[in-house]
Amino acid sequence: MDWEECVNYLLTTAQHHVHERMSQLLAPYGITPGQYGVLNCLWNKRGDTPKELAQTLNLETSTVSGLLDKMQRRGVIDRIISEADRRVVRIILTDEGCALQEPVLAVIRQVNSEVLSGFTSAESEALLAALRAIIYRN
Amino acid sequence: MDWEECVNYLLTTAQHHVHERMSQLLAPYGITPGQYGVLNCLWNKRGDTPKELAQTLNLETSTVSGLLDKMQRRGVIDRIISEADRRVVRIILTDEGCALQEPVLAVIRQVNSEVLSGFTSAESEALLAALRAIIYRN
Repeated sequence: MDWEECVNYLLTTAQHHVHERMSQLLAPYGITPGQYGVLNCLWNKRGDTPKELAQTLNLETSTVSGLLDKMQRRGVIDRIISEADRRVVRIILTDEGCALQEPVLAVIRQVNSEVLSGFTSAESEALLAALRAIIYRN
Repeated sequence: MDWEECVNYLLTTAQHHVHERMSQLLAPYGITPGQYGVLNCLWNKRGDTPKELAQTLNLETSTVSGLLDKMQRRGVIDRIISEADRRVVRIILTDEGCALQEPVLAVIRQVNSEVLSGFTSAESEALLAALRAIIYRN
């Protein structure tokens, strides 16, 4: 099979390009695309324990713990002991983590529109729908 | 922005699903999707030094070296000193590495057709063309 016909190769390479661009534009804010995923969960209250964040992001809990360590050192999140259950660690946004929401979401919107800029709106919609179909079918 | 509209999130998640399926089907052959990338270069003579392989695969040379270490231990490749230039290491396929070509390519074709199975051929073509456009525009 030619590589240009291999959906895994094309997905991986396209994802790599978009990820690189996002890394480049997020760098001035001191965060990585993976860390943005965690921040986005916290901004939208889609989980606040490492386990819930891992489930929402479809990542291993150990991967999320590594992201959280870096984000805590960077000062954008903090870990607190849950008052309801002292065995549970909850993740909270610091003021700096909250303040990142607006500029970081602007970066994400910019990357999205750059990536989709060469497509008509029907082509963009078809691409996003095809990707969602791959995700939800599998 | 809703996640379902974010092209980076959709690409990453779709790629993750396809990669997981490929990992599962390649496991009986003792290789990973990344190692398949290296084997594919070698089968198609698209590079035979770590540097050339890294360029073809769009990976860091250090990442390729790590893949090659595991593949050498697994017995599918070997490293030899180039006769033309003794500073250059060339990668060769072992008999076992050659023998993997047919069954592994069958796995790749299977994953491809599973992933694209819910689409009409026009939809599949449009998806692959959109991914190629993202890759070559960026």
